[in-house]
Amino acid sequence: MLGKREPGIYGGKTLADIEADCQAAAASLGLAIEFRQSNHEGVLVDWIHEAGEKAVGIVLNAGAYTHTSIALQDAIRAVSPLPVAEVHLSNIHAREPFRHKSMVAPVAVGMICGFGPLGYTLALQALAARL
Amino acid sequence: MLGKREPGIYGGKTLADIEADCQAAAASLGLAIEFRQSNHEGVLVDWIHEAGEKAVGIVLNAGAYTHTSIALQDAIRAVSPLPVAEVHLSNIHAREPFRHKSMVAPVAVGMICGFGPLGYTLALQALAARL
Amino acid sequence: MLGKREPGIYGGKTLADIEADCQAAAASLGLAIEFRQSNHEGVLVDWIHEAGEKAVGIVLNAGAYTHTSIALQDAIRAVSPLPVAEVHLSNIHAREPFRHKSMVAPVAVGMICGFGPLGYTLALQALAARL
Amino acid sequence: MLGKREPGIYGGKTLADIEADCQAAAASLGLAIEFRQSNHEGVLVDWIHEAGEKAVGIVLNAGAYTHTSIALQDAIRAVSPLPVAEVHLSNIHAREPFRHKSMVAPVAVGMICGFGPLGYTLALQALAARL
Amino acid sequence: MLGKREPGIYGGKTLADIEADCQAAAASLGLAIEFRQSNHEGVLVDWIHEAGEKAVGIVLNAGAYTHTSIALQDAIRAVSPLPVAEVHLSNIHAREPFRHKSMVAPVAVGMICGFGPLGYTLALQALAARL
Amino acid sequence: MLGKREPGIYGGKTLADIEADCQAAAASLGLAIEFRQSNHEGVLVDWIHEAGEKAVGIVLNAGAYTHTSIALQDAIRAVSPLPVAEVHLSNIHAREPFRHKSMVAPVAVGMICGFGPLGYTLALQALAARL
Amino acid sequence: MLGKREPGIYGGKTLADIEADCQAAAASLGLAIEFRQSNHEGVLVDWIHEAGEKAVGIVLNAGAYTHTSIALQDAIRAVSPLPVAEVHLSNIHAREPFRHKSMVAPVAVGMICGFGPLGYTLALQALAARL
Amino acid sequence: MLGKREPGIYGGKTLADIEADCQAAAASLGLAIEFRQSNHEGVLVDWIHEAGEKAVGIVLNAGAYTHTSIALQDAIRAVSPLPVAEVHLSNIHAREPFRHKSMVAPVAVGMICGFGPLGYTLALQALAARL
Amino acid sequence: MLGKREPGIYGGKTLADIEADCQAAAASLGLAIEFRQSNHEGVLVDWIHEAGEKAVGIVLNAGAYTHTSIALQDAIRAVSPLPVAEVHLSNIHAREPFRHKSMVAPVAVGMICGFGPLGYTLALQALAARL
Amino acid sequence: MLGKREPGIYGGKTLADIEADCQAAAASLGLAIEFRQSNHEGVLVDWIHEAGEKAVGIVLNAGAYTHTSIALQDAIRAVSPLPVAEVHLSNIHAREPFRHKSMVAPVAVGMICGFGPLGYTLALQALAARL
Amino acid sequence: MLGKREPGIYGGKTLADIEADCQAAAASLGLAIEFRQSNHEGVLVDWIHEAGEKAVGIVLNAGAYTHTSIALQDAIRAVSPLPVAEVHLSNIHAREPFRHKSMVAPVAVGMICGFGPLGYTLALQALAARL
Amino acid sequence: MLGKREPGIYGGKTLADIEADCQAAAASLGLAIEFRQSNHEGVLVDWIHEAGEKAVGIVLNAGAYTHTSIALQDAIRAVSPLPVAEVHLSNIHAREPFRHKSMVAPVAVGMICGFGPLGYTLALQALAARL
Repeated sequence: MLGKREPGIYGGKTLADIEADCQAAAASLGLAIEFRQSNHEGVLVDWIHEAGEKAVGIVLNAGAYTHTSIALQDAIRAVSPLPVAEVHLSNIHAREPFRHKSMVAPVAVGMICGFGPLGYTLALQALAARL
Repeated sequence: MLGKREPGIYGGKTLADIEADCQAAAASLGLAIEFRQSNHEGVLVDWIHEAGEKAVGIVLNAGAYTHTSIALQDAIRAVSPLPVAEVHLSNIHAREPFRHKSMVAPVAVGMICGFGPLGYTLALQALAARL
Repeated sequence: MLGKREPGIYGGKTLADIEADCQAAAASLGLAIEFRQSNHEGVLVDWIHEAGEKAVGIVLNAGAYTHTSIALQDAIRAVSPLPVAEVHLSNIHAREPFRHKSMVAPVAVGMICGFGPLGYTLALQALAARL
Repeated sequence: MLGKREPGIYGGKTLADIEADCQAAAASLGLAIEFRQSNHEGVLVDWIHEAGEKAVGIVLNAGAYTHTSIALQDAIRAVSPLPVAEVHLSNIHAREPFRHKSMVAPVAVGMICGFGPLGYTLALQALAARL
Repeated sequence: MLGKREPGIYGGKTLADIEADCQAAAASLGLAIEFRQSNHEGVLVDWIHEAGEKAVGIVLNAGAYTHTSIALQDAIRAVSPLPVAEVHLSNIHAREPFRHKSMVAPVAVGMICGFGPLGYTLALQALAARL
Repeated sequence: MLGKREPGIYGGKTLADIEADCQAAAASLGLAIEFRQSNHEGVLVDWIHEAGEKAVGIVLNAGAYTHTSIALQDAIRAVSPLPVAEVHLSNIHAREPFRHKSMVAPVAVGMICGFGPLGYTLALQALAARL
Repeated sequence: MLGKREPGIYGGKTLADIEADCQAAAASLGLAIEFRQSNHEGVLVDWIHEAGEKAVGIVLNAGAYTHTSIALQDAIRAVSPLPVAEVHLSNIHAREPFRHKSMVAPVAVGMICGFGPLGYTLALQALAARL
Repeated sequence: MLGKREPGIYGGKTLADIEADCQAAAASLGLAIEFRQSNHEGVLVDWIHEAGEKAVGIVLNAGAYTHTSIALQDAIRAVSPLPVAEVHLSNIHAREPFRHKSMVAPVAVGMICGFGPLGYTLALQALAARL
Repeated sequence: MLGKREPGIYGGKTLADIEADCQAAAASLGLAIEFRQSNHEGVLVDWIHEAGEKAVGIVLNAGAYTHTSIALQDAIRAVSPLPVAEVHLSNIHAREPFRHKSMVAPVAVGMICGFGPLGYTLALQALAARL
Repeated sequence: MLGKREPGIYGGKTLADIEADCQAAAASLGLAIEFRQSNHEGVLVDWIHEAGEKAVGIVLNAGAYTHTSIALQDAIRAVSPLPVAEVHLSNIHAREPFRHKSMVAPVAVGMICGFGPLGYTLALQALAARL
Repeated sequence: MLGKREPGIYGGKTLADIEADCQAAAASLGLAIEFRQSNHEGVLVDWIHEAGEKAVGIVLNAGAYTHTSIALQDAIRAVSPLPVAEVHLSNIHAREPFRHKSMVAPVAVGMICGFGPLGYTLALQALAARL
Repeated sequence: MLGKREPGIYGGKTLADIEADCQAAAASLGLAIEFRQSNHEGVLVDWIHEAGEKAVGIVLNAGAYTHTSIALQDAIRAVSPLPVAEVHLSNIHAREPFRHKSMVAPVAVGMICGFGPLGYTLALQALAARL
């Protein structure tokens, strides 16, 4: 829904724009990335397990599941020590109280929020700096 | 105390190393910065007021005062809309519960934590992208 | 499971009976409806997004997900201002405390609960009155 | 104060308009109703006791007392099994937290909120469907 | 409503029966009593002020107001040191949690609950023992 | 009960003394006032509605109802923007915890407490300064 | 320690005085009683089990264990429906918050507190009225 | 992920090893079992509904969903009185606080946790003892 | 009290029946056991210390003390790494909230609850599997 | 920052304007005052100690430290019975929850808030009335 | 168990070693002491009552009962003003949260914790300084 | 303020008296000490950092900052493993609830409180015993 949903909060870029930015940033860092989106908590769990087999890091924006999903936390713990960088488009600390808590944060390397789509490319840099 | 205190958490760079990195990053972004450190909450409040007069942005690591200081929050609100980028060396969300809450976050543009000293230069990039 | 599960709470009508009642009520109001059921939270999110493209309103009984799903709340907010009327067969406020809280309510136009299957047709009337 | 107080929340209809709508709706359902208003908690308790003697149901909008009054809850319990349909003009779940809790709800048949004055006539239909 | 309302909890005696028992008990203790009932919190406050002028003690069953009324607590404190004996027909500690707390108790001499109407005459004995 | 009840807390002035002081202060400010007292929450609600029709401001000491009454808060909101100055004889923040919270405060212009009857005349000055 | 410990709270009567009062009261009611005291929670549990075999009721002052002992609550439930009347010398609701909660109350017939040793004989009357 | 993920907590057996143990134990008890695994909450709900049609009991390890899923609790209640034995490989009560609460437990016959894969065969014995 | 107390919850077996079952199960596992019962928290602490000297494991049902006893937790920790298997006849998670928390669980190997006396023999199997 | 910072909340007067008003009000009351401002909690503590030596009262606006400073509360207690009148420019009870609590209030004579700079001169009148 | 149990926390001294140290310290202070140990809460209560008859002070390490025992607090209050010095071998404030709260502290003269067995002789000095 | 402020709580000794006692005690233990006092949190942080360079231990009474200062806790952690002995003149556990929590305690070796100025010399003994 990006680019259409609440642009005041999430900005005017579409998902395709963001992927293009990420691919460009990854290329300049010498990394190959896969860019995926799903509304299903179980699918995200499967992908994290899959990344545990073949990736060197994860940039994760878990959306609404961020705040409630023990399943995501367990999945990340299961692929440890694969590093996970948590990203949010908006500043979740300045929104509703139920968005202040992240189940992902305790098992993530770090979090970037409030800088819009730029957060994804900053996160790629941060992960690349650890390799 | 940086470089000596708990290097497992805060990394091995000294304060001087970090300042050098920040000056280099700022130069490459075409920005001039002032780099300051204090253990006194009241001094930090004075500096924020001062920045309100002559700066275009603040990168702020409020250390332990992050979690309790209403005075810092009020100072940032008083210089609004000057943008503040919050930085923490460690991932505060993965440490003791009393470090999970930030009084700075509700009035900041965004937060970067857990990436060590690299966070300062990422924050400079993020602020520069807004100018 | 309707008609078999706990009839004292949910009544003796089957899902097919309820759909028939809804189709009749919609016809008398000059509305065309689609009637769907799923046990999967992600599927419900997909359908709400789909409704945002082609419907004039949603009557939603989110079942057990009502009480925990931030994802549903975000989905409804994403299709705003499409009106959502929340329905529950039982009076959720008179049952266990964890059923008293609805994540759907803050983004719904209104809620009807405790009147059994009749709630669906009342909700259709309420939405029709807004067109 | 209806029609003058915060019309954005409570709508522009006056109390007299609402009574007229209710009388019309009741007539079409073959019911006779009494329509009453008071700012006094004790008076509401007295009326509920009186209804226990001579009415077949109550449509109750307890206003601000909804959220704190154990006395109203006890009164409704005392006239049990007389059915009570709870109505609120606004969607109380989308307002301040202290309005999310209803002392009436645990002893009511159901609740309708957020549809403005239409809620009263929907409630009358719901009660009529139980006769 | 006594004698009709939930006899399993409140017993089968009417208010008139209880008054007769109290008058008999008072007579045998050499006391004169006034027996009053109201559903209005403000009226109870007025009566306590009045008792402060002319009574030697109060037996008080504040019903549902017991649990929320700061006004009753202030009224009792205002007529101090007039002794107040708190009575409840049912065992309030074995019912819903919101009935466990009494605003009257902190300013009462003592409490008797759970023994039905017998509680009133036990309370009269307890007050008489203090004269 | 003023002048008799707990003089250590509420001071030795009677209600008549306070009214005389207020009338004098109002006269010197060029204002006409009505001075009223009631133990009934519903009566206070009625008076606030009445003031909404014919007064330019309210000095309100809601006594024990201050801490629990949503009805008073709604009444003040209904007559908005009529200014309300909240007064308490004692310093409510230095007494029992349940007196620390005021339901009136969120809809009042300001509060004066702890200065005894003088608070009423200070409040009149504060309201006059807004005219 | 009775009669010596904090007489302002517990009164000047000794344990022997209280037993004498109870024996006299029991005799006038046609009852035979056993009067026991222990500082050991386990002993009190044993005695309740024993009473389940041979008594028609229990008057229980569980002292400090009242507020924490799930073991006493289970013991009383195990001998159900043997009636238990709970007694406290002082008004536990007017003392420290941790004395406001009783683990005995939810399984007792009723409670008498704050009337000193008189409470024991009132409790005997209340139990006798049930035989 | 079993056998690879955190063997210190979950043990070194693979899912295939556990299924083999369960099939052997079931055979010795004269039972036929189906052994299934999914990361999707909705799939687990579907399987419980399916078991309600054709099974005599369920051994359920709901993993991370144990702690948050109202949907699973409702599904188990819908197939009642089909007995459910809850199993956890680790001792959930000795881990993080958010794992101490089970939404499955209130509708299960019992729980076995902390004994690793052996828990499954113990649970089969416990269910068999009820047939 | 077993076999007499609340058979709906605790089953119809007596303590002697359970001991016989345990002795038989222990014999078939090649273990010698001592079977003990006490209502005294201090006695249970003494026995755990004693087991630390001469046993290879403990099956412990701490009854009501389970939920409050720090002393039992400390005793078990003092004899560590002696394994303790926690057993409860009823499903403590499906009863009152104050029974949901176990002070024993954080220092136990695992817990078995809700399967009645069978739980003791299952616990013996679980301990034996660790030898 | 006064006069520049958030004038909607704090008004348009500068600190110099307020000092002038206070000097004028003090003169008319026959009092001599010192007017000071600091952003440092420790400096405020020193000044309160100093006032204990040579002043007859304190008008204190502790700004953001109001809500967290035990040090200020201890300093005021150390100079007791020197009277302190607490002032806030804005109505702290109508702002964010963390501003509702004052550490100064329990040791102050009274509080005036919400009436802007006028509060300082009202506070001077209130202290003068006590001399 | 001292000297064997968790020496990292409790140190390597046995109970006999500690008694010897205490006897030596007491002798050098001109005091005679009795040194006792029990695992039974009721026994500790009995001993405090006994000390009230014949001792001039108590050094008390209540072990695990420190954190839950209202009975111990009441016993100390009953022998008031006999001074009690509370001792803990470990720093209870740096361990699990449930060990942070002491029921003994509110009725003790002071507390010494974290200095191992040395704490007992420091406590004897502290009590001796009060004689 | 010592010796003047609330002598009932803090005793009649002045700061100079206490320093003299400490110097004498240190001399008898063969230690050299520096004795400092400040009302400024930031100054205390600076001194702890300084001690980390040149001292073998710290006796710290952080006064009111004890209860809120994360900055002090971080400073102590930064100079770890330098031992810190926490001292309070009064028994902080027997005063207001907000004084029960110490931010220093989790990083201190131990705490001594309630024994007045004697606590400082007891703490010196305790630190000396560790050298």
